[in-house]
Amino acid sequence: MSRVTCDLTISLDGFAAGPNQSKAEPLGEGGELLHRWQFEEPESNAAEREGILAAGAFIMGRNMFAGPGAWDENWRGWWGEEPPYHAPVFVLTHHQREPLEMQGGTTFYFVTGGIESALAQAREAAGSKDVAIAGGAQTVRQYLSAGLIDELRLHIAPIVLGAGERLLDGVANLKLEPTEVSGTKLVTHVRYQLVR
Amino acid sequence: MSRVTCDLTISLDGFAAGPNQSKAEPLGEGGELLHRWQFEEPESNAAEREGILAAGAFIMGRNMFAGPGAWDENWRGWWGEEPPYHAPVFVLTHHQREPLEMQGGTTFYFVTGGIESALAQAREAAGSKDVAIAGGAQTVRQYLSAGLIDELRLHIAPIVLGAGERLLDGVANLKLEPTEVSGTKLVTHVRYQLVR
Repeated sequence: MSRVTCDLTISLDGFAAGPNQSKAEPLGEGGELLHRWQFEEPESNAAEREGILAAGAFIMGRNMFAGPGAWDENWRGWWGEEPPYHAPVFVLTHHQREPLEMQGGTTFYFVTGGIESALAQAREAAGSKDVAIAGGAQTVRQYLSAGLIDELRLHIAPIVLGAGERLLDGVANLKLEPTEVSGTKLVTHVRYQLVR
Repeated sequence: MSRVTCDLTISLDGFAAGPNQSKAEPLGEGGELLHRWQFEEPESNAAEREGILAAGAFIMGRNMFAGPGAWDENWRGWWGEEPPYHAPVFVLTHHQREPLEMQGGTTFYFVTGGIESALAQAREAAGSKDVAIAGGAQTVRQYLSAGLIDELRLHIAPIVLGAGERLLDGVANLKLEPTEVSGTKLVTHVRYQLVR
């Protein structure tokens, strides 16, 4: 069976997003600084960047797809007409909506049956490839708490946000084992296996 | 001039100690799990363990020396008659006390003049060697906030404590650059240079 992976960038003080997330600033105040490693050092971090998008199917929370605020039935995501996923993306939501087919192989499916239903559908779609929990932090916490993630790949940015959304708040009884570590001056990559 | 270094072990969710620190449990509930890497993998982590004790002088907070609770004038530390420092250790406190000379070269000096006074005395004592901020988290935060640390060496244990004393709460405007990363299955070591 394919593995369930999760890539997430956090600050050194554990925040996956800054405070006051909004549709104008989906990563919150200061949150874009988390991702300098992706934009300023694309070559040094090529393997990790490719790893983020290598899955055969993705799952994301409704805020990652649509941001906070009222649900907009016509919203098409943040990624333009050709999103970088090139695979099925299952969006957790309470709103039923027809699948949204984008260019380049990305189709957003809206799942109202909860995280296990989304995972079952994503596994089916991914075939032998991995399923990636794409975010945001709340969705990752739900999957971690349910024991459904096999590998957590943290990308730790050397910044202190001081406030925002913490990745690991309220997630207890995790058994983690680091298996690989590397980095640049803008990020430290750590792979953790979740031990059952 | 010698550098000011700081080694600190934290959990993946950023705690340097668990909740409810006491004289019976100075690292708080679950806090001893932070240090498994030192006790269970001494050989794999030999360089980092030696690095922690390589300084020419140390500075520690009163809680690290004496634990929380009333100040005991006769307390001789947690480390037995031959502490592992083998160098002068400057203890931040509001209580004046004569220097306490232990076996093996460790002498505890009690400094009532604040963190800069302690650092000046430690630099003098260290000569060309480094000065180490030994902990605890509150003392490290004070030195970080004052811009007085040159190298922060974090040892990130793959555990989630969920509560306790966070290293980086309330420390803003840090500019950090990771310079070295390594690890084992019980710890991830990251060296950060503090950028002025």
